Order: sequence, then C-alpha cells, then structure tokens
Amino acid sequence: MSVTAAQGFVASGVTAGIRPSGKPDVAVVRSLPRAVGAALWTTNRVEAAPVTVSKRHLAVAEPQAVLINAGVANAATGDQGEADAVASAEALAQELGLETEEILVLSTGVIGVRLPVDKVLAGGRAAAAQLSPDGGAAAASAILTTDSGPKVAVVASGGFTVGGMAKGAGMIHPRLATMLVVITTDYPLAAGEAGVFLRPAVAQTFNRISVDGDCSTNDAVVLLANGASAAARDDAVFADALGEVCTDLARQIVADGEGATVVLEIGVTGAASGAEAEAIARRIATSPLVKTAAFGHDPNWGRVLAAAGSAPYDDGFARLETGRLTVAFGGVAVFAAGAPTGAVPDSSGTVCRIDLDLGLGDGAAGYLASDLTYDYVRINAEYTT
Amino acid sequence: MSVTAAQGFVASGVTAGIRPSGKPDVAVVRSLPRAVGAALWTTNRVEAAPVTVSKRHLAVAEPQAVLINAGVANAATGDQGEADAVASAEALAQELGLETEEILVLSTGVIGVRLPVDKVLAGGRAAAAQLSPDGGAAAASAILTTDSGPKVAVVASGGFTVGGMAKGAGMIHPRLATMLVVITTDYPLAAGEAGVFLRPAVAQTFNRISVDGDCSTNDAVVLLANGASAAARDDAVFADALGEVCTDLARQIVADGEGATVVLEIGVTGAASGAEAEAIARRIATSPLVKTAAFGHDPNWGRVLAAAGSAPYDDGFARLETGRLTVAFGGVAVFAAGAPTGAVPDSSGTVCRIDLDLGLGDGAAGYLASDLTYDYVRINAEYTT
Repeated sequence: MSVTAAQGFVASGVTAGIRPSGKPDVAVVRSLPRAVGAALWTTNRVEAAPVTVSKRHLAVAEPQAVLINAGVANAATGDQGEADAVASAEALAQELGLETEEILVLSTGVIGVRLPVDKVLAGGRAAAAQLSPDGGAAAASAILTTDSGPKVAVVASGGFTVGGMAKGAGMIHPRLATMLVVITTDYPLAAGEAGVFLRPAVAQTFNRISVDGDCSTNDAVVLLANGASAAARDDAVFADALGEVCTDLARQIVADGEGATVVLEIGVTGAASGAEAEAIARRIATSPLVKTAAFGHDPNWGRVLAAAGSAPYDDGFARLETGRLTVAFGGVAVFAAGAPTGAVPDSSGTVCRIDLDLGLGDGAAGYLASDLTYDYVRINAEYTT
Repeated sequence: MSVTAAQGFVASGVTAGIRPSGKPDVAVVRSLPRAVGAALWTTNRVEAAPVTVSKRHLAVAEPQAVLINAGVANAATGDQGEADAVASAEALAQELGLETEEILVLSTGVIGVRLPVDKVLAGGRAAAAQLSPDGGAAAASAILTTDSGPKVAVVASGGFTVGGMAKGAGMIHPRLATMLVVITTDYPLAAGEAGVFLRPAVAQTFNRISVDGDCSTNDAVVLLANGASAAARDDAVFADALGEVCTDLARQIVADGEGATVVLEIGVTGAASGAEAEAIARRIATSPLVKTAAFGHDPNWGRVLAAAGSAPYDDGFARLETGRLTVAFGGVAVFAAGAPTGAVPDSSGTVCRIDLDLGLGDGAAGYLASDLTYDYVRINAEYTT
C-alpha cells in the first residue's frame, strides 16, 4: 500500500528503460484532493538538478504530485540537467492538468550522466495513465536501485493514515547513493504546516542513520497531506504516527545497507548537551573501527571509547570525562567509572546494541548504523565505471 | 640509523615479552648532551595514561629520554594505568641517572589492558644497558605492531642532521591504532623552541594523513634537540629538514596503512580559505566511497564531488559552487566548470592523484590517504577479542 494507504492518493510504477537491468524505474504519486506538502533535502553543496528544480517549485506552490526516476541521478549535469528536470515536470503537469510548479521531481542513480529525457517523458506519461489507489506497491518498486526490496511503512491512527515508501542502501553501483522517501497522509494540514511536522520527525530518524557516513547529492524526504480522511485534528497523534513511519523506514534503510549483516543501535546518554550526545553518537556510528568490529561480532569497547573521545563539536570535541564513562554492549556494562569491568557480553546476534553514558548531564541521542563488511567493499570497489 | 643519525643520541630496542609474537617491544632513545624537546599529542578526549603522564613531565622539565613499549596501549586503564606509567618512568630515570620528569613514556597496543609492569621495567633496564649510537635500527623495530616494517627517515643538511622513526598502520590487532613518532636532531635549539618548529611541521604532515579517519588514544610525536652538531643556526634550513623528515614518515605510514594497496594524493586549491581547503581535503580523504573507488582503480569523480560538497566547516559546510569546480584524476580534468569533460584518465597505478580546484579563492591544502580494501575489513573484523 505504502503511499496509497492514505485516502485520496493514487500512484503507479512503470518500466521506462532507464535502468540497464530492465526493472521498473519511473514512479508517480499524486493526491486527488488538493494537498499541502513539504520536503527536506540533502545538505550536500553539490546539489542535483532535480533538487534545485523542486526547491524552486516548492517556493511558489503546494506540491500535488511527485515524479521519481531511478537509474540516473541527474547530478553534476550542469544547466542541461536543470533543463531536463524542468522538462520532465512540465510534461507530467500537462498530463495531469496541474501547474509545472505543483510537481516535485526526484532522481536517483548514476552521477554525472545526462537524464535520458525521452525515456523519462514516456515513462511519466505511462505512469500518469496507470495512476491508481492500488498503485502503492508498484511505485515503491520503481524507485529502487541496489535495494534488496521495497521499503514501505503504514500507520493508521486517530481516524487517519500515514503511509510511506523509501529507497536507499548506501549507494548505486557503480556511483553514488541516494535516499528518497515519499510519505502521504490523509490527515488534515493547512498550507505551510507540513514542514513543521516533517522537520522534527526527520531529525530523529533519517538524520540519525548511517550506512557509510557519505551524504548524497539527491537525498529527499517528501510529505504530502490532503485531509481526505476528514479526521479531527489531534496533532500529537499525527506527529507520533509520522514519527513511527519515519522510524520504520529509516531502520529498513540501515538493515538493507550495502553489504550489511548487523544493525548497530547506538544510544548516548548523560551528555553535557543534546547536540554533544548526537555528535558522539554520529562519530561512533561512522567509525570504520566500530563498524568492522560489529561485523566481527566483537564487543570492542576500546574502539567505542576512542571514537567517542574524538567526536567533533564546535571548534573542538564533545565534552567527555573518561572517569565518568559507562559503556554497555547488549545491556552488559563492559566499562564503568573509568575502568574495564571484565564482563564479556554476548555479541553473536544481528543487532549490536551499544550504550554509552557520559555521566555529565541530560543530553541524549540515538543512532542506527550498519556494519562495515567485505560486501560493502566489493559493491563499491568492484564495479568500475 | 633513524633516531641515532644525529650526533649525541643513543638508542636501543629489546624483547621484553609484552607482544605475544615474541618480537622486540621496548625501545629507549636518549640524548647524551642535555637536550630540549617538545611533543604533540593525540587530541582524543579519551587519553591514554602515558600521554597524561608525559604531558605532566613536559610541563616541568626538558625531556632527555623516551621509553616506548609496544603490545599494550595502557589506555582506558584508570588510576592504575597512570601509576604503571609513572613507575616505568621512575625506573628508567634511576637507571639513566635522570629525573623522572625528564622521561617521556609512550605506549602502543591493546586498549583496556593493564600494562605488564614487571616486563616493562625489566625491558627498560635491559634497553638502558644496551644504549648505543648504533641502536637506531633496533629502536625503530621495537616500536612496531601491525606495521609491515620499520619506518625511518634521515635528512642531513646545513651541518646538522634530523632523524626520525615512526610506527602506525591504522590500528593494532585486535584493538586500536596508535601512531608514535620520535625525531631527534643535533641542531641547536634553546629551551621552549622545539615546539615552535614541531607544530607547523606536524600540521602539514601527520595531521594531513588518514588511514581510516579514526583518532587513537595514544598518538604522539616527539622532537628532541641536543645541539651536538655545533652547526650555525639557520632556522629556515632546519624547518625544511624537519618538514622533510615528517613528510617522509607520514607517507610511509599511509603507504603501510592496514590493507592499503593505493596511496591517494589529494590536492585542494582555490578554496575560500585555507581552513576550508583542509576541511574538504579531509572529507575526501575519509570518504569510504572515494577510498573503495581507489581500491577499484575507478576514477570516480562523482564520489569526490559528493564528498567535497558535504565537508563540515564551522556550523555548516565548506563553501563550494558546483559551476566553478574542476576535478582532475592524475592530472586529467574529468569535470570542469560544472560539467563532465568526458575524459577517461588512467587509474591503474598504486598512486591515485586527485586535484580539486574550487575557483573561489587562494585556500589550498593537501592530504594523503590509503584506500579501503578487503584486507582492511579482514584485519579489523576477523581478529576478535
């Protein structure tokens, strides 16, 4: 169901011939009642053309439909890339009877290659013709690249529904990664409100995961809300439901990380501030030493300490005092009050839970990460351009 | 020769039984004439006991000798670890007729394990008895762990000599890495001057290399200067010679990085500032995508762009405009003025030269990095504790 689980949304996915594999590669999601929406974008300074064009559209209109292609990222393609993205949006707008600015365009795939515009236009037309309330699954399949399968999540709550689809597994062979997420809801939101709910949900979920610490040129999370449920407003319930969908999709992305065999659940508590807790959690989540140890099922707390102690924050490092630290693997304390406890935790599972308490304050943050494996190196080294 | 190339220095290396392999594991370096010295330490907030103790010693005395052990890092060992480090320094000081505060102690090896003090004391005594002007090679061998061989460099210049030894290959199996460097010179420096020369040399060399982006708890670079050459002062010549030794040792560490098959030479020019050039160069040097591409001999400029565009700087990212960027692999431009050139560079060699010009200002920085390989994962995942 994914993006068509909420009332008033239609979607479709088609094969346009962009991916060499011949798999589906163009998806469209549309709201039938007028929707309001918001999006959060990659912070990479090398911004893909579809991101640039979609930001421009969002600045002047509420989004009514999203056009997504897999196979080519349309990034680092210069002015031609922007023109191609605009042309794709224009064609779909005409097909759907919408303004061009009401279309968001998302792309994922190889960087530095021109978008095959004819294929995208034909794919967009075909997808527009097949839009259906049953098209959620087809759409979720048509946005994938190296993903092992579709990633969808649905939460029904308080008389309304939130549904989403995501793609992302680290990167595209042989080039770069993109994480794309589209979430729809029939909960009633007014213009300008979607971002207010989306920002905190993403901060706690998609911004707290790491496959390889690399940030793509195309990342996007889109929320469309059309109010079709006629549910009464209960913003706390909606925020919870949205957070649940984001949490579910974020974990699916990490678990499907390229080459991943173990999900690291990292919890940092007792930091001097929330921002410092996040800096330390991120540093642990991106440490090649911690990630190879997880692959080796080694409860290597020395590497966790070394990563935590070098977490960049402001112009220096996040605050930390060795003598106040406690580190636990799977709930078993291995380091406490500045010295090893001698305990040997079981670390044989596919989840590696690491808790670090700093004993300094109330700052806390969580992070999810995948391990660093032979297959990660294989996927990203063996396929040459 | 290494640390005994300069006049007035003696050194030795012995087997004290700390390393399970039975290889040499305790080294001593001493200046016979009174020396002045300085050291630069890891910035990791989880600081090993020998670092804490040596900093304390340096604050009150000029260092005359250095005691180094391999096999155990004496990090995350609490108050007991500090007491062990002090006891080692005391014993060597007594043996050499020096003050305890004139001894620097350095350790490298497993984190979280107590130093086998009896072995270190016996090793220190044996090493003190064997100190010799011919002992440089033995000392350089006794500080190694996973290194494939000793790393030494000597520059003779202007009537004086600068010699150094280094260890470091990413990390120690099964625990953490440490980079240790000891440099000696018979160039005449006054008390307090050694740091003035050491800081800029290290900033341009050891602080511009990355094997895996991880920062150890024990890193140290020590410079001892005893003036035994009686050379006339020419500080520019000395700074050059010191820089040359540091450059040589730093490159040896990268080339011997765990599992490394390719050295990445990264040059960033045209940045808005020198600090931003360094931030971008560091981000490229630590990107798993760039490093796996180098292993695959893939001139994957898309990954370079994506890394550059996400280089953290201040509270945001280093400045960059896609339309002004030029990227070259091995001197061949693959991306210019915001668009691909279509050129296909040769990337078959063991050196991968990447140049990125931002076209914004005069900021420039270089970085050396090793590639990310199957062997890196093997070394750090397969050996469990």
